[in-house]
Amino acid sequence: MIDYLNRLGVVLTGLPRASAEAVSELAQFGVATIHEAMGRVGLMQPYMRPIYPDAKLVGSAVTVLAQPGDNWMLHVAVEQLSEGDVLVVACTSECVDGMFGDLLATSLSARGARGLVIDAGVRDVATLTDMRFPVFAKAINARGTVKATLGSVNVPVVCAGALVTPGDAVVADPDGVVVVPRDAIASVITKCAAREANEASKRARLAAGELGLDMYNMRPALKAAGLTYIAVGEKAKQDDR
Amino acid sequence: MIDYLNRLGVVLTGLPRASAEAVSELAQFGVATIHEAMGRVGLMQPYMRPIYPDAKLVGSAVTVLAQPGDNWMLHVAVEQLSEGDVLVVACTSECVDGMFGDLLATSLSARGARGLVIDAGVRDVATLTDMRFPVFAKAINARGTVKATLGSVNVPVVCAGALVTPGDAVVADPDGVVVVPRDAIASVITKCAAREANEASKRARLAAGELGLDMYNMRPALKAAGLTYIAVGEKAKQDDR
Amino acid sequence: MIDYLNRLGVVLTGLPRASAEAVSELAQFGVATIHEAMGRVGLMQPYMRPIYPDAKLVGSAVTVLAQPGDNWMLHVAVEQLSEGDVLVVACTSECVDGMFGDLLATSLSARGARGLVIDAGVRDVATLTDMRFPVFAKAINARGTVKATLGSVNVPVVCAGALVTPGDAVVADPDGVVVVPRDAIASVITKCAAREANEASKRARLAAGELGLDMYNMRPALKAAGLTYIAVGEKAKQDDR
Amino acid sequence: MIDYLNRLGVVLTGLPRASAEAVSELAQFGVATIHEAMGRVGLMQPYMRPIYPDAKLVGSAVTVLAQPGDNWMLHVAVEQLSEGDVLVVACTSECVDGMFGDLLATSLSARGARGLVIDAGVRDVATLTDMRFPVFAKAINARGTVKATLGSVNVPVVCAGALVTPGDAVVADPDGVVVVPRDAIASVITKCAAREANEASKRARLAAGELGLDMYNMRPALKAAGLTYIAVGEKAKQDDR
Amino acid sequence: MIDYLNRLGVVLTGLPRASAEAVSELAQFGVATIHEAMGRVGLMQPYMRPIYPDAKLVGSAVTVLAQPGDNWMLHVAVEQLSEGDVLVVACTSECVDGMFGDLLATSLSARGARGLVIDAGVRDVATLTDMRFPVFAKAINARGTVKATLGSVNVPVVCAGALVTPGDAVVADPDGVVVVPRDAIASVITKCAAREANEASKRARLAAGELGLDMYNMRPALKAAGLTYIAVGEKAKQDDR
Amino acid sequence: MIDYLNRLGVVLTGLPRASAEAVSELAQFGVATIHEAMGRVGLMQPYMRPIYPDAKLVGSAVTVLAQPGDNWMLHVAVEQLSEGDVLVVACTSECVDGMFGDLLATSLSARGARGLVIDAGVRDVATLTDMRFPVFAKAINARGTVKATLGSVNVPVVCAGALVTPGDAVVADPDGVVVVPRDAIASVITKCAAREANEASKRARLAAGELGLDMYNMRPALKAAGLTYIAVGEKAKQDDR
Repeated sequence: MIDYLNRLGVVLTGLPRASAEAVSELAQFGVATIHEAMGRVGLMQPYMRPIYPDAKLVGSAVTVLAQPGDNWMLHVAVEQLSEGDVLVVACTSECVDGMFGDLLATSLSARGARGLVIDAGVRDVATLTDMRFPVFAKAINARGTVKATLGSVNVPVVCAGALVTPGDAVVADPDGVVVVPRDAIASVITKCAAREANEASKRARLAAGELGLDMYNMRPALKAAGLTYIAVGEKAKQDDR
Repeated sequence: MIDYLNRLGVVLTGLPRASAEAVSELAQFGVATIHEAMGRVGLMQPYMRPIYPDAKLVGSAVTVLAQPGDNWMLHVAVEQLSEGDVLVVACTSECVDGMFGDLLATSLSARGARGLVIDAGVRDVATLTDMRFPVFAKAINARGTVKATLGSVNVPVVCAGALVTPGDAVVADPDGVVVVPRDAIASVITKCAAREANEASKRARLAAGELGLDMYNMRPALKAAGLTYIAVGEKAKQDDR
Repeated sequence: MIDYLNRLGVVLTGLPRASAEAVSELAQFGVATIHEAMGRVGLMQPYMRPIYPDAKLVGSAVTVLAQPGDNWMLHVAVEQLSEGDVLVVACTSECVDGMFGDLLATSLSARGARGLVIDAGVRDVATLTDMRFPVFAKAINARGTVKATLGSVNVPVVCAGALVTPGDAVVADPDGVVVVPRDAIASVITKCAAREANEASKRARLAAGELGLDMYNMRPALKAAGLTYIAVGEKAKQDDR
Repeated sequence: MIDYLNRLGVVLTGLPRASAEAVSELAQFGVATIHEAMGRVGLMQPYMRPIYPDAKLVGSAVTVLAQPGDNWMLHVAVEQLSEGDVLVVACTSECVDGMFGDLLATSLSARGARGLVIDAGVRDVATLTDMRFPVFAKAINARGTVKATLGSVNVPVVCAGALVTPGDAVVADPDGVVVVPRDAIASVITKCAAREANEASKRARLAAGELGLDMYNMRPALKAAGLTYIAVGEKAKQDDR
Repeated sequence: MIDYLNRLGVVLTGLPRASAEAVSELAQFGVATIHEAMGRVGLMQPYMRPIYPDAKLVGSAVTVLAQPGDNWMLHVAVEQLSEGDVLVVACTSECVDGMFGDLLATSLSARGARGLVIDAGVRDVATLTDMRFPVFAKAINARGTVKATLGSVNVPVVCAGALVTPGDAVVADPDGVVVVPRDAIASVITKCAAREANEASKRARLAAGELGLDMYNMRPALKAAGLTYIAVGEKAKQDDR
Repeated sequence: MIDYLNRLGVVLTGLPRASAEAVSELAQFGVATIHEAMGRVGLMQPYMRPIYPDAKLVGSAVTVLAQPGDNWMLHVAVEQLSEGDVLVVACTSECVDGMFGDLLATSLSARGARGLVIDAGVRDVATLTDMRFPVFAKAINARGTVKATLGSVNVPVVCAGALVTPGDAVVADPDGVVVVPRDAIASVITKCAAREANEASKRARLAAGELGLDMYNMRPALKAAGLTYIAVGEKAKQDDR
């Protein structure tokens, strides 16, 4: 697959998808948790933001590589979508035009797609918000695009700094967008569950007033690193600032 | 009028306005639609964002050219405002200071103005939101400004990349801000209406599952451009990634 | 105190705090008002934004100087927090990683802290929003951090362009974040109250239609500066644009 | 002319040019001087930078409005160029692709063009530098572009925030890029000459040690504004910092 | 290899390199040409700039994945370098600290490395320039880094938006940085040579005054697209602007 | 002194300066070295860049706090300058206007000032380069400024993220700008000298091919942290990518 990275002019078909069951299990975890469980890889850059505050999505990636200012390939991609997919759009160069709007969202919904991740702009965001169609994008922009030059569908792409291979699971929530390779989903779910179980007890202890310094046993390492406590209070009271 | 572009130290008076009827007809269309109907011109840059999520405005432009960090001319402009106007503020150089706050908004409301478009910062946004006073701005910033140097009122300005002539219609919604020249409003309304009628039927067909590829008859052009479908599925299942 | 500016590897203790009474009086004023009352100093840069629209906070600063990508010192700082404090985090160099999440917020809440101001990223923002834990940050980012290198706690820092000394009052609302030196709080409150009293009457006059030009007596100065009114209306009607 | 602003799909021909004599007179002044002589209007945004440190150009503008990622119209524009012209390229939306390289520069040179101002990227900059072909651009970028969608040639455009009408004089030096409307060139030259004459004597007086405070007679205004001199030196020596 | 993408805590050894002969053949072509020959893929983002104007490099990639603000892995990577290599440094999150300076450059030179490509900052640039050690970086910054947390050496990384696998050829010149997969180098060289041969004749024809419109036979397609020539000259002379 | 931080409307006089001898000793060290010697504090943000490639300066700071778009205070500051000073200009809010040009540089030179550090724009850069007048600035911009509103001279300021107190030593070279508190200069010089002595021998060892891994004895710590070497070479040769 990686040989097709950024290849232009092709639509790859018949690719395996992330399984619906695996994806729905992943959906119970937040992006920060998944990112940690993966060893801190797979996260897109933080400029990718939801178009409404509580937008979330999870699904199997169908990828698009589009030319800047040209959304022709998004129409090609719709035919490749099926229930449970997420459309992931990368551009061959930086673009903030509004490549996607309510008509495409209607079409994606009709195909059962779960949302859009796009390293470019979107428009009709009031309608998209009313539709509760989740979109994570670089920009909001009424500027339309042409349909003139080929890109590709379902080739591996670098989207907002993350490699996305078709069939990878994509999870997005207000913390960002993370990509989980298809064959890593099961192990990531296991690690997320362990992490969450662990966090619940930590949260309770911290809520009860226990210090992270003690709970994580940080004091010896801090001391070894040379952290110094200085009681400047009395002096400060005399000549502060 | 264009001879007055960016001219400093003047207030132009007695200028014609976009008609209230025309403006209220425009108000039924979104910014993306209007921008398309105009042939994709007149849009401000996408960094102009609403201060609350569902802010919208439409009106006849009264323009201000302000010095950076100086909001003196906004006070001069208030006197030039009447029912149905929108205040459009450009700066002579880049500025993100909070040039506008709740007192000016009170004054604008008292004059019947419909909102503010400003290529700079605003403040008191919690109060402005409570007032439901729509503002599209480059920044939110508590930093105040001085009142020391002349700019102008009602000269043509370039605001966020778009030329605005006093009396142009200005429409803003969460997709952005678009400027419609006064003498083009009628034809833009006609084109918007045609476009919307057209979109309604398209939306229904897409919602029913028809593909844009077919509805827009894109397949021949894609084939002519050389788009190639490759069934990599089986191969992918064997040696994927 | 200023000698400790940006000093690494230390935790200063026993420092005086802004008094709870003074802080609660400050809390009734907005950031824009406080910034004006202070003579327009003390404001952080406008990229510091709340993680939910109506977030607000006020308290006595406990400062952290952290290494980029390393949140070790935040855990050290928790122990120094007490009722009414606000945690203020600066970094030794630019950083947008998610240094702070819901576990730390739980810990801060357990200590009675009133919120977080951080010149870096945060994560778990959906949970933080549900907790109504106010955060003003440079970025939202799921990216986690390490705990490997010493910074400091309670040294003076430059955070988002503003000098913050431990024990300063910090006030944040949707207009931004402002820092009030501990020994200036009383005088700032007095000036804020005077300003607000003054604004109430101005607001009423403006709402009644009085012009700022008259209320502030700006016409003589504008005339002296050379502002010229030109009645171009009739001409404009003939050959406009 | 202004009615053609940003109009797509057209090439305007037979337009008047800035006269060669006027342009060569303008060429003796720097961009900062011209911008001041014009009353501080007409300057492009400061992100427009030369591709080599001492690049300069002056000429009569032939404009291009290009689609992002598409340089087709630049080829159309070449035919419209003649001796003494400068090509000015604006895009319908933000673009940093390399729209222009050494082949186009060869073609422009063959037509007698004096350089390029482009609100996008350029490539082959080593060759362009060897050719001493002056370019002022937003970016340097090897990324190529397609030739698929119409823009326009010789319509008025907003380029990097400045309105450019075909036939305007364009002057660029390391301080930036300024646009002088064709019918203002003569008066701008006169004002520049006066300004330069004035500056020469000022420079001599300042070089001799005279203070601007005295030469410009600023002291009374500073005093009236309330500037206060405080001799903190002795105190500072005792408890400095 | 791609399974190791962004994997932390490992050093991969014994990897094949781009052959010295192939690399030296590639070195005769510019980045723009190579990028075109590859079908417009493999280019890093344009913020990667040389530290001196005529910096160039070509070699076989040894990759580093570093933590922000931590250059420990660069020291680990040096041992993996041999004659003809280029060090390519990506970070796990955005970083502009000065991760690399003259001591590391001395060490790289001693190993026969040909230069550095780093998606972060560098320092000692005056010395690096004197050494003629080519560096392409995101920033210049005196800020130093710690050596505390593991990254990786020789795993595939996404650097400035481009996937880099160890052993890929990396070519950089003032137009940017391009990555050529090891097994594509031969075919890319062939295509570059063809392209250059082709360009030489084009350059000669353009220099002789032939128009690109004719040489590329663009007129029919422009006409089909609807490009319209309008002779506005006479009208413009009468009522211009 | 710190009480005057950002205070508007005042000129502080009679302040002690960094001694000329100390400053000239500092001048032999680079900014990166000084920044390290200071414990990695005092560095301005990396957007501060020299206007010509080999610009350098060192001197005792005279500070200006200016309003955006207003350079009045720079004229006031000239009178406060004497032999060996460096002018450091901060703004009350973000500004990229050209606040400083060749006339002010002439005046500064006449006073014996050694250069300018300005968190804003400058113009006349070609002339400044010819004069070899070193400037470190945020932007180059022909845009002029007004002289209308008071700022201050010789109050402590935050400039590009660093606190500058009048009389601090300021050192700038192509790596950036660093501020050394007046009473720390002697100890910083001692540490710089030690560091440089140390670096000379390191440089020689590295140039001779010794690895930093060995010279700094990093292997045990890397092993303890878990760094793993994996010989993937043979496998990679079989199924690479």
